Amino acid sequence: KKRSLGRRRRDFVPALQDREREYVGLAELPDQVRRKTARKGFAFTLMVAGESGLGKSTLINALFLTDLYKDRKIANAQERIRQTVRTAKRTVSIEENGVKLRLSIVDTPGFGDAVDNTRSWKHLEDYVERQLDRFFRDESGLDRRNIRDHRVHCCLYFISPYGHGYAAGRAASIAALPSQGPAPSSTWFRCWPKPTIREELRRFGINIYRFADCDEDDDDDFKRRDQLLKDSVPFAVIGSDVLVESRGRRVRGRAYPWGTVEAESPAHSDVLLLRDMLVRTHMQDLKDVTCQSHYENYRARCIRGMTRMVVREPRRRKPRGRPAAARRLRRGKGETAP
Amino acid sequence: KKRSLGRRRRDFVPALQDREREYVGLAELPDQVRRKTARKGFAFTLMVAGESGLGKSTLINALFLTDLYKDRKIANAQERIRQTVRTAKRTVSIEENGVKLRLSIVDTPGFGDAVDNTRSWKHLEDYVERQLDRFFRDESGLDRRNIRDHRVHCCLYFISPYGHGYAAGRAASIAALPSQGPAPSSTWFRCWPKPTIREELRRFGINIYRFADCDEDDDDDFKRRDQLLKDSVPFAVIGSDVLVESRGRRVRGRAYPWGTVEAESPAHSDVLLLRDMLVRTHMQDLKDVTCQSHYENYRARCIRGMTRMVVREPRRRKPRGRPAAARRLRRGKGETAP
Repeated sequence: KKRSLGRRRRDFVPALQDREREYVGLAELPDQVRRKTARKGFAFTLMVAGESGLGKSTLINALFLTDLYKDRKIANAQERIRQTVRTAKRTVSIEENGVKLRLSIVDTPGFGDAVDNTRSWKHLEDYVERQLDRFFRDESGLDRRNIRDHRVHCCLYFISPYGHGYAAGRAASIAALPSQGPAPSSTWFRCWPKPTIREELRRFGINIYRFADCDEDDDDDFKRRDQLLKDSVPFAVIGSDVLVESRGRRVRGRAYPWGTVEAESPAHSDVLLLRDMLVRTHMQDLKDVTCQSHYENYRARCIRGMTRMVVREPRRRKPRGRPAAARRLRRGKGETAP
Repeated sequence: KKRSLGRRRRDFVPALQDREREYVGLAELPDQVRRKTARKGFAFTLMVAGESGLGKSTLINALFLTDLYKDRKIANAQERIRQTVRTAKRTVSIEENGVKLRLSIVDTPGFGDAVDNTRSWKHLEDYVERQLDRFFRDESGLDRRNIRDHRVHCCLYFISPYGHGYAAGRAASIAALPSQGPAPSSTWFRCWPKPTIREELRRFGINIYRFADCDEDDDDDFKRRDQLLKDSVPFAVIGSDVLVESRGRRVRGRAYPWGTVEAESPAHSDVLLLRDMLVRTHMQDLKDVTCQSHYENYRARCIRGMTRMVVREPRRRKPRGRPAAARRLRRGKGETAP
């Protein structure tokens, strides 16, 4: 036993000598985190909102190269008019190069389909808040080791290319990402009124996800990509789950009488940019914004609400002559409130 | 404006085409986490315990290549006998290759120096618990964005090479914070009774840090290093902050009449292995064990204690005839306890 340790130690010596001894080795810390998170796997919850028929499901399938909507029933016009907004959650596990993602899509069939859609957004908001509340309760519980996080990290809001729609989204309390429905023709893409939409979002006070500023020491390539993504909001997308022939190649796209739209060509659609942003560059930031900003705000609001309730209650009891207990209760609560 | 976007988009096209489109890009998720944590910087709190004169400060300086103890006063024998255990925290910021570490060393002057040392360990335990409690309060507060984490992530426990010492650490199983035992000696290194120490730690029920098992898909080199670290517990170390001449090279070491001990030679001392373990391979795991296991246990104990108190209090009030209020209080508390 001792001998084998000695031998192993000798094997190890050159490795130790090769490394520069004047370094503590901090450079390996980020890699430890990287290794740990990669092993644990990722989870992401994406909400999708927009009228029926804009191609939401197709887009989601195209974005994540999966087939989430195999068994879906599509409502007819009659049903749609009476339909109230529901939420349906589908979860799929994706794995690439050993990295696992548990992707949950919160779909909102019926959103914007009724004649009066003023309350549509409220429904989504309620859903988001319920998930925050659920996490708040779980996080305040005794055993926190197996909490499932259902919080919504991002909402893709689809704007119809035919006008009205996003005014309803004024109250967005999550990282909302507006994206335009399929540009019905590829030539529209270039003259797509992104600046107009950005201006209107600003005017109506609709908060959308704000890209974090680049760090000074990020490389130029990263900065350029980041700026391109920022300029691309709202993303003009066209999804497709079929392969069509275009210029001699088989590509995902839509064939129209006047030509073929390539869903993954940057000249025709922002799908790849949106995927880039959602997965490759900003997924973690969307999660952080949800957890550190939206959730913390919700939690603080909750606690303030509880404190007010507790303070009000003893006051009501006071006339019955137990001010000391009331005071003790108030103090006690102040300390234990999470 | 529009034109420049167009140009930038065209620059971007080849990059998009080069990448394989049949990948969603999950492989970049761990890198997002890596980038974020690297930008934020790391923090680590290390507690150091052991009798005076074992070379603790020298070792810390050697481990982190810093000079933490410039203005230290060394107590004389008379003072030491009467000395009670105190804790002194020193913080230093280290940066290497753009990675920042905020290192806090909790020193415990006086530990094990008195004639009766039975209470020495209790003092450290109290300190560790106070930090857990502080975090519990902060974490339960309204604004959690600027919490400073003072929790102790690791305790290096120095065992004297001259016998007694770790028996005092018997209570370590309560604090449940791991500790390693080093030893400043020289040619003793090879015959250092590591198995004996391991056996005695086990016999006295002293819990030390348990290395997590390797993952199956870790590469062999990683597994070998990990096994070597496991076999090296307790680390036999000799620290030095001076350069001495040994075999024609200038190395950190200690010159004795009978020869030179090289502090950073794996044949003489485990210093490099200990640094490897503390920084390069296991720092994040030590933090995770602290936060996910020790802290969560402490928190659960606290909440259970509070709940018991709350349940007991209304009972005392019951005879005065307010059972309904008491019941309401109990229910309310159950929900708001963090």
